[in-house]
Amino acid sequence: MQFESYIRDIQGFPKEGILFKDITPLLNNPEARTNCLKVLLDSLKNQKIDKVVGAESRGFFFGMLLAQELNAGFVPVRKPKKLPFDKISASYELEYGSDSLEMHTDAIKKGDRVLIHDDVLATGGTAKAVCELVEKLGGEIVQCNFLMELTFLNGREKIDEYPVFAALTY
Amino acid sequence: MQFESYIRDIQGFPKEGILFKDITPLLNNPEARTNCLKVLLDSLKNQKIDKVVGAESRGFFFGMLLAQELNAGFVPVRKPKKLPFDKISASYELEYGSDSLEMHTDAIKKGDRVLIHDDVLATGGTAKAVCELVEKLGGEIVQCNFLMELTFLNGREKIDEYPVFAALTY
Repeated sequence: MQFESYIRDIQGFPKEGILFKDITPLLNNPEARTNCLKVLLDSLKNQKIDKVVGAESRGFFFGMLLAQELNAGFVPVRKPKKLPFDKISASYELEYGSDSLEMHTDAIKKGDRVLIHDDVLATGGTAKAVCELVEKLGGEIVQCNFLMELTFLNGREKIDEYPVFAALTY
Repeated sequence: MQFESYIRDIQGFPKEGILFKDITPLLNNPEARTNCLKVLLDSLKNQKIDKVVGAESRGFFFGMLLAQELNAGFVPVRKPKKLPFDKISASYELEYGSDSLEMHTDAIKKGDRVLIHDDVLATGGTAKAVCELVEKLGGEIVQCNFLMELTFLNGREKIDEYPVFAALTY
């Protein structure tokens, strides 16, 4: 069973001219979801992972499932002011201006083998910021993985020093 | 192994006078996380669940694990303007003013047996709004479950027509 058909195109969301890839049908179908999870896991070829880092908030969905299957810790990377403990932050560029992401300082230990997960690799700005946070804490990035890669946005170039895997490409 | 020690008290977050319960250490420890998941699952006594509904965004963490273990669909309930497809919304009261939550109209079918999950049962406003959304779409609420219940806030009273389970109470 394929899972690509459980990703729904939404024209004009969140604004005109954008084709949004809606993963809620995939989340809502346990068989398709499990197949997608298996593809992500297979790409790791049994490499040991200590921590899975997921980006707020759509990276939390499969990030948690990956952490559970890999028997690894799960680390949420969040938008500013959401995390309550000591934290570090990294900025990334938006079309206009910039935004930042935060991670708890105790989330990753030096030498931890880290899998980074998000739903979509678009321009790569978010992924690059997450990689910076992980490396600031001494983590070793084993792979950045994504449900989907929007190849026309060339996000892979921003994180080309790391192994990158996307279950689907557009 | 207990998991209660993996929930961290943060004084004065998000504002003075609030004692925040930080679940990130629990997410980050696979053994404690799995034990907590088992307690939530055991409370269901093998009742069939078609959909797990998790509230943005801390309800996504264990909500996804519950859905995966139960072989059920996962349905995210989100803050306004986050969901891209046809949706319904429900409001709830805040200390000052109100806020609302949204759910896709195709997320639940009439007669679906639904488990609602969030990290904390506090005043019950969020949980009540989620219940309303599920019932608007014809779902049957089997249980509302939480990692923690802050009993002094009496949130259970707002959802007393449904079975409620909390893995920890304070």
